[in-house]
Order: sequence, then structure tokens, then C-alpha cells
Amino acid sequence: MPSEPGDRPAVGRKRRKQHARRQEVLDTAARMFFERGYDGTTTQDIGAALGLLKGSVYYYISSKEDLLFELIQQYHDDTRRHFEAILASEGSPVEKLRELIAVDTAHAARNLERSTLFYTEWRSLSEERQAVIIAERSRHERAVQEWITEAQASGRIRPEVDPKIASFGIFGMVNSVYRWFSPGGRKTAEEIGRDFSDLILDGLIDPAG
Amino acid sequence: MPSEPGDRPAVGRKRRKQHARRQEVLDTAARMFFERGYDGTTTQDIGAALGLLKGSVYYYISSKEDLLFELIQQYHDDTRRHFEAILASEGSPVEKLRELIAVDTAHAARNLERSTLFYTEWRSLSEERQAVIIAERSRHERAVQEWITEAQASGRIRPEVDPKIASFGIFGMVNSVYRWFSPGGRKTAEEIGRDFSDLILDGLIDPAG
Repeated sequence: MPSEPGDRPAVGRKRRKQHARRQEVLDTAARMFFERGYDGTTTQDIGAALGLLKGSVYYYISSKEDLLFELIQQYHDDTRRHFEAILASEGSPVEKLRELIAVDTAHAARNLERSTLFYTEWRSLSEERQAVIIAERSRHERAVQEWITEAQASGRIRPEVDPKIASFGIFGMVNSVYRWFSPGGRKTAEEIGRDFSDLILDGLIDPAG
Repeated sequence: MPSEPGDRPAVGRKRRKQHARRQEVLDTAARMFFERGYDGTTTQDIGAALGLLKGSVYYYISSKEDLLFELIQQYHDDTRRHFEAILASEGSPVEKLRELIAVDTAHAARNLERSTLFYTEWRSLSEERQAVIIAERSRHERAVQEWITEAQASGRIRPEVDPKIASFGIFGMVNSVYRWFSPGGRKTAEEIGRDFSDLILDGLIDPAG
């Protein structure tokens, strides 16, 4: 987009700098919460790691819970964006299921610090903030259940599958990734996402076996 | 077994009574840890719930961590017993996999208070006690990986399956049960166990579809 006459480049630069600084604060907090745990990290620790003077920490960090919330929200916003894209896509229910499992798994593995916070520390959020996340999780579960039911109606998914139990199993699997994924390991986040979606859709058994 | 001449029935009765009392202490602790959390429950709370006088609590309960350890150990001993039975069974690797997933899932659902403690509070144990549990978990994972590899060699399991990633997915799924199972709900612990093993072995896709 070309500059509007009212745009002042200096303001844009300042905003970008503020944004970059905020991201640095968040990344440092994410790393420290991940390494020492949320309870084991103080606002002053984060300030010290950022090289902030004691008096200026609260200029950048209003409270530890706000940082946690912002980190969890970033993770959650990305998850929701992926979910909306899949909902809006043209694929069949089976294709949407395959995609959701792969994308959610890969996203958790690629953003290990934030996904670990998301899964382990969300209870440290206020009840209203927890409620937002619970509502979003339920939307995912319901979508998975509906896709399974639709695919059963068209004969693509086995009629014996219980859509609700299957959705719990799927998210149990996907949500376990942060516990064991090693960045730089044998497989990438994307490969593990594909492995999980194939495991759930196709199962272990070889139909030709 | 007939009584030995040296057996004194009064001693047997006393032992049985002590054992029953111990089990009552453990069941009360499990329920209270489950309802209020381990950190939110004191030894005195447990004593009060058992109707113990303040001075006699420590006769029955040496420490809260000992209770936690005993509860986790009971859960863990049962899990190991099931595992050993499956290892010693005559079934094929696929049958063993099916059985392990079903049994582990049903066991977690049937013993909701103890399985919740097992999964959420095991970090409250001492490092040596944690090491025992980690070693046992690794044995389970390795067995699952070996069964998958064996079944791939005989063509029963799809060659594309990554045994390690699959084992992580399986335990992620099984270990999530305590988070959502409701006793007295639509399905029994055993039915959910079967649903999970069918989901993993047979997948969602209907091969006839």
C-alpha cells in the first residue's frame, strides 16, 4: 500500500521499533517460562535477561500474568487462524480431518515454548481468559465430531467409530506433542503432523496384509 | 492354604484390620487430592476426614508425600501387572498392541482418582521415585515399538508407520483419558478402551468405503 499523505515515516519507524521490542520481551519471557517454569520466573528475572534497568521493567512488563496471557493468546490465535482456514476450505470432511490433525500437531511442535505454556500454564490465567480458550477448544472438538459423522454418512469413515471418543483420542494425541518433541531431531514438525494424521485416518493395520 | 500350627487367628484378624484401615486412609487421600489437588490438601485435612484425633494422625500418616507415592505406586503396580500379563501372553504383536491400548485406557478410566494423581502429581515425588516410573514408561514404549516393527516384518502393519512416533501418539491418547472420562457416563471404561484400540489399529477410514 502506498503511503498516505498523512503518513509520517518517523511514526512508522517508532511503531515498528516498539513492536519489535515487544516481541523481544515476549520471546524472552517464553524462553524463560519454558526453561524455569512460570512459577519459577519473576518479572525482575525477565527484565534482567533483557538488560532492562530495575526501574524500567514495569514500563515494558505490566505483570507476569499479562505476558503469559499474551503468549498463550499468540499461540491460540495462530491455532484459530489455521482452524478457520480449514473450515473455509473446499475439502471433504476426511481431507479436513487429515489437515487439522497435521496442522495442529506441526504447529505445537514448531512453537514448542508457546505450546508448552498453552498446555501446562493455562490454568494460571484468570477464569474469563480460561473460558475463551475452553470455548475455542470445544469448537475444534465439535468440528472433528461433525466431520466424522458426515464422513460416516457418505461411507468414508467406519460406522463403528464413536465420533466423540475419537475426537478426544485425536486431541489427546495432538496435545501430547509438546511433551516429547525435540527440535532438530530425526523428524520435522511437519513430518510428525503427517504421521499423526495418517495414524488416525489409516490406522496401523495394513489392509493388504 | 490350611492354617499352620503356629498361625494365630487373632493375629490374622489384626493384620486384616490394619490393612483395611490403611486402604481407607489411602482411599480418603486419593479422593481429597483428586477434589482439592495435592497442594491444596494437608495431612491434617485427611486426618479430619477420617475422623482421627489430631494427635493420632501421624500414627497413620507419616507424610503427605508417602501417601502420594503409595497411591501412585498402587496405580503403577496394577499397570505393570497388566503389562507383564500381555508380554507373557501367546498373542501376535497386533493382538498384544490391541490389548495393551484397551487395558491401559480402561485402567486409567476405572481408577480416575489414582490415574489423575499418576499423571498430574508424579513430579511431586522424589527424583529416585520419578526415575522408577520413567523407566517403566520407557519399557512400555519400547514394547509397543517392537510389536509394531515385528508386525511390519510380517506385513500386518503398514510399512510407512514410524514405530516411535506411533508409540508417542498411542500413549498421548491413552494418557489423556483422565482429563475427560466421566464415571457413569454414556460409555464404560472398557468400551472406551476398545474404541481407542480400534481407532489406532483400524483407523477412521472405512476400507470398504
